Amino acid sequence: MTATIQSVSEVCRAAAEAAAEVAVLPTQTKNRVLLAMADAVERHAEPIMKANADDVAAARAAGVSSTLCDRLTLNERRMAGLSSAIRTIAGLPDPVGAIVTGWTRPNGILIQQVREPLGVVAVIYEARPNVTGEVAALCVKTGNCAVLRGSSMAMATNRAVMAALQEGIAEVDEMPAAAVQLVDDPSRDAALELMRAKGYIDLLVPRGGPELIASVEANATVPTVIDGAGNCHVYIDTAADRRIATDVAINAKTSRPSVCNAMETLLVHRDLAHDWLPGVLDELAALGVRIKGDETVRRHWPRAEEATETDWETEYLDLVLAVRVVDDAEAAIRHIRRYGSANAEAIVTADIQTARRFTQLVDAGSVFVNTSTRYSDGGEFGYGVEIGVSTQKLHARGPMGLAALTTVKNVVWGSGQIRIV
Amino acid sequence: MTATIQSVSEVCRAAAEAAAEVAVLPTQTKNRVLLAMADAVERHAEPIMKANADDVAAARAAGVSSTLCDRLTLNERRMAGLSSAIRTIAGLPDPVGAIVTGWTRPNGILIQQVREPLGVVAVIYEARPNVTGEVAALCVKTGNCAVLRGSSMAMATNRAVMAALQEGIAEVDEMPAAAVQLVDDPSRDAALELMRAKGYIDLLVPRGGPELIASVEANATVPTVIDGAGNCHVYIDTAADRRIATDVAINAKTSRPSVCNAMETLLVHRDLAHDWLPGVLDELAALGVRIKGDETVRRHWPRAEEATETDWETEYLDLVLAVRVVDDAEAAIRHIRRYGSANAEAIVTADIQTARRFTQLVDAGSVFVNTSTRYSDGGEFGYGVEIGVSTQKLHARGPMGLAALTTVKNVVWGSGQIRIV
Repeated sequence: MTATIQSVSEVCRAAAEAAAEVAVLPTQTKNRVLLAMADAVERHAEPIMKANADDVAAARAAGVSSTLCDRLTLNERRMAGLSSAIRTIAGLPDPVGAIVTGWTRPNGILIQQVREPLGVVAVIYEARPNVTGEVAALCVKTGNCAVLRGSSMAMATNRAVMAALQEGIAEVDEMPAAAVQLVDDPSRDAALELMRAKGYIDLLVPRGGPELIASVEANATVPTVIDGAGNCHVYIDTAADRRIATDVAINAKTSRPSVCNAMETLLVHRDLAHDWLPGVLDELAALGVRIKGDETVRRHWPRAEEATETDWETEYLDLVLAVRVVDDAEAAIRHIRRYGSANAEAIVTADIQTARRFTQLVDAGSVFVNTSTRYSDGGEFGYGVEIGVSTQKLHARGPMGLAALTTVKNVVWGSGQIRIV
Repeated sequence: MTATIQSVSEVCRAAAEAAAEVAVLPTQTKNRVLLAMADAVERHAEPIMKANADDVAAARAAGVSSTLCDRLTLNERRMAGLSSAIRTIAGLPDPVGAIVTGWTRPNGILIQQVREPLGVVAVIYEARPNVTGEVAALCVKTGNCAVLRGSSMAMATNRAVMAALQEGIAEVDEMPAAAVQLVDDPSRDAALELMRAKGYIDLLVPRGGPELIASVEANATVPTVIDGAGNCHVYIDTAADRRIATDVAINAKTSRPSVCNAMETLLVHRDLAHDWLPGVLDELAALGVRIKGDETVRRHWPRAEEATETDWETEYLDLVLAVRVVDDAEAAIRHIRRYGSANAEAIVTADIQTARRFTQLVDAGSVFVNTSTRYSDGGEFGYGVEIGVSTQKLHARGPMGLAALTTVKNVVWGSGQIRIV
């Protein structure tokens, strides 16, 4: 890392200038950089964890919530996880240069659709400092330049991680230092400047709360993919295997309630309101989940609080669950189309036609059949780590791995053909 | 078409409501609708051409340029072209339901990436009334609802075309009338309302001049793909086949200078400045092309006017050509990275390494080797017609055919797996 603080525009310009050089590096060079980065992160574990301890102490002193402090913390397990994630990315296939499809036209011109790097990828993120290393690694692997803008809370940690990454990069001559940069300015203005760096940033992914997303939607002039909210549903169909239904409902709500792929509303076919629902609500309640239900739910399980319209709209990110009894799969689909946030949705059913219709009509990055919404995750998809989870329909949907950091160009090979129209 | 004028919000709401129904129609039903639409357009040829004659007469009276009047005109050949385009689209493979890729994870969950309709596709376009039928057909084929907003100049024609399309749609019970709608309000406010119909429009493609594009970039809150300018280059390398170089240069400039895939700047390797360049400039001048050149060009071909910085930036869309002599392919790539509009770029060379490097480093939807930029066109790519030509990197690039009107959803099949993290 440079000793002098660079302005956002300097960082962006340096990234855009380095982009052409980084884009054409062969896979083996990029992998050498990744392995050097992983080694350097391991060598620097001590200064990184020391910087992190300072960040965490400052956050605690400032009264930051324990959830956020937990996300901020880099313990030995997470440090090992970071270098291991970088090595995993080194081992994945390089999407760059892949020919997605191609064909020859009657006049003999050959059209190839070729994956290539986007150019410069920026990520604005909060708390979790392992994102610094993960995004850097995903960008190096895909031949993109990374511009990272972490939160002020994690600044000391991010600087220490970046120093390690830069040491790794410096070991491979062909890789310019500007391939991975940290915006060393935690101000709101710096974030705004990044959102408006049109012509320099080819993709901006905001990873954070609703306030950050709203700011990006209001201000960004650069291309963005939104990693948005997760108001996720599990629908238990009349044809559900009851054991799977129970397992999925409990897993989706309780395995990690603070993340975006956790279930927020359970939709239950009316046929199961009497037989199955009370049992699973007993189990959920025993695990500490606060239950809010509609009238039918409360009739069958009177301990439930009353659910209102607001509950259908709320992403609790906590041990709270809204529960609604619906007439059939169509009603569940309508509910999800209205209240869902296009992130991850699930159905439990043994009926193949119901499952297919649900997967077709529910708008979400990922739709799960007979398994948990918690699998909406780059690692679980086999992507190593993720750059984010897209909740939009254009460019990328659901967990974004390496391919989401590429674009597809039409490369057309002729032999002197000209167009006579 | 309904007799009462619907507001933009009514049109958008009706489209969004019909979207789920249209999305799951089988290919054979959609193809029946397309064939009925093509038949109806043929049956209605007379009233359509009569309405068009009124539009053209009004445009002429208002002093509209002859180029625009030409684009507005629907003669018998273009009418036949429209119904034939709709039939071609009926004959193309349906991208919806295609599994782009898929894999099984070690825990047994099966991940499928499945193409599906975007939902509601809106197009704001100018003059050319055949776009009305073409976009409607592309949307029907891909299970999307179309919201069409033509220009006031073409309003009578668009209404007549829409009446025919609706007659075709009405022949197939399963297809709702709201699948294809015309915004019957040519005001600027209506266009702005469409750009801001967030939650109703899944994709907006503006097809028009720089003013429309700027308005969309400034105002749109809905997802957009920009069909932008075409400041296209042809670079003639030292290793070029001279005959191919001449053919491509002349074709790219003169075959249809008013369209976005026409060449605007010719870049020539210095080795050819003396031997090849004067001859091709003679030919171009003989075809009526006004030549603007840099100093070296003017030394070798003194009839050239002086080219300035502005010329490198200009999309003439006319029989005018800027010409620059460059030191090598790297200099040509740098010029195009600086001035190009990411539309269509070409190189003429017999050297495979030079060609590969050019195709990798030039930022464009399509890069052509030894053939003309004029092939950047949905029809020439084999897409039937195009919804537009994307000049952005996200979602779609270059000529947009049926696949560009789809999105890819992760559909994940399990058998009760839950995540233990």
